Amino acid sequence: MPYRSSDKTRQKKDAKRTAMMQAAVRVFAEKGYHAATIRDIVAAAGVAIGTFYFYFPDKETLFVHLYEETADFLLQAIRQAISSRATLPQQIAAGLQAYVNIAVFEPAVIQLLLVGGVGAVPSLTVKQHEFREKLVQIWQRPLQNADTLIAPQNTQRTAEALVGGFDEVVLGLLRHPEAGSQAGTAVQELTRFALRAVGYTGS
Amino acid sequence: MPYRSSDKTRQKKDAKRTAMMQAAVRVFAEKGYHAATIRDIVAAAGVAIGTFYFYFPDKETLFVHLYEETADFLLQAIRQAISSRATLPQQIAAGLQAYVNIAVFEPAVIQLLLVGGVGAVPSLTVKQHEFREKLVQIWQRPLQNADTLIAPQNTQRTAEALVGGFDEVVLGLLRHPEAGSQAGTAVQELTRFALRAVGYTGS
Repeated sequence: MPYRSSDKTRQKKDAKRTAMMQAAVRVFAEKGYHAATIRDIVAAAGVAIGTFYFYFPDKETLFVHLYEETADFLLQAIRQAISSRATLPQQIAAGLQAYVNIAVFEPAVIQLLLVGGVGAVPSLTVKQHEFREKLVQIWQRPLQNADTLIAPQNTQRTAEALVGGFDEVVLGLLRHPEAGSQAGTAVQELTRFALRAVGYTGS
Repeated sequence: MPYRSSDKTRQKKDAKRTAMMQAAVRVFAEKGYHAATIRDIVAAAGVAIGTFYFYFPDKETLFVHLYEETADFLLQAIRQAISSRATLPQQIAAGLQAYVNIAVFEPAVIQLLLVGGVGAVPSLTVKQHEFREKLVQIWQRPLQNADTLIAPQNTQRTAEALVGGFDEVVLGLLRHPEAGSQAGTAVQELTRFALRAVGYTGS
């Protein structure tokens, strides 16, 4: 920060930053990383271009921040959903439901994390690997906690395979116009898939 | 073709096209789609720049052809491996082995299909979806053929989840320096994962 601002000024600034971030998610999802311009983002956010440069030196820096914050938001939502339940079947269903809800209601989030631009921004590769590793850990934990109720297995590899499987199904869901109406069935089918995949023997 | 060439001329040309395609896979994997230039590709292929423009109007067209041909190559390898075996466990193990072999020995192929540039080339979205759908079909067929030996399920969704799971594990494998030595274990673990996931009851 170049100067110390009052609390009120800081709040206003945070609101502008948030507006730019929210606009950027949509702009990147619509146009793709390379086609999207800083002018598109400030226009969609309704802020002056100088405001952009107050926060970010360039488009790539904004994108990296956006990726990190979006990834944290998704991870937190899944983590909370899982930890709010007691048994493995409930945990898997709740974690999947949280993920699918975000995908259906905020598809731009998934677009940003899984599809758009990542390959196009070399500096993002490390962040992307960190995101995948955290996502795997989130799904591995309930498997470790239920280790007497599942088949003997490498739970890290199982969690990797589940994470990839969930993503593929969710991306397939988003390609169809009736994603919302299929979401419930997808969650149920994926939950059964996951419980079979880990060899769950509980009730 | 602007003119009718003799068989010999045609063979020479095909060799140049192949050299450019092989060089392009590597160049795109190393530099990413946007940073890679036509000059990089012709330099790596050892052909003149005019040769490039004889075959392709621009980089994007080459990339789309490359993506299609690489996808066909991978699909064909997995399809053949699966169809060469009789039982579901053998089919899954053989299909996975074929996929992992390509990933380990030609990582640029996987880089091209799963990571690099796809989000950066809008005209590729349709091709990418076609590739995913074909891959899902290839894995769905052995499940349909074994339908009396697996749990009742939506085999298309199961195949989607398996395809995504296999990709995630293979990408994780490629990130580690000892990918080759871990490949065998990964194939075994993924085979067991898949057999549990489909609820296989055969022997």
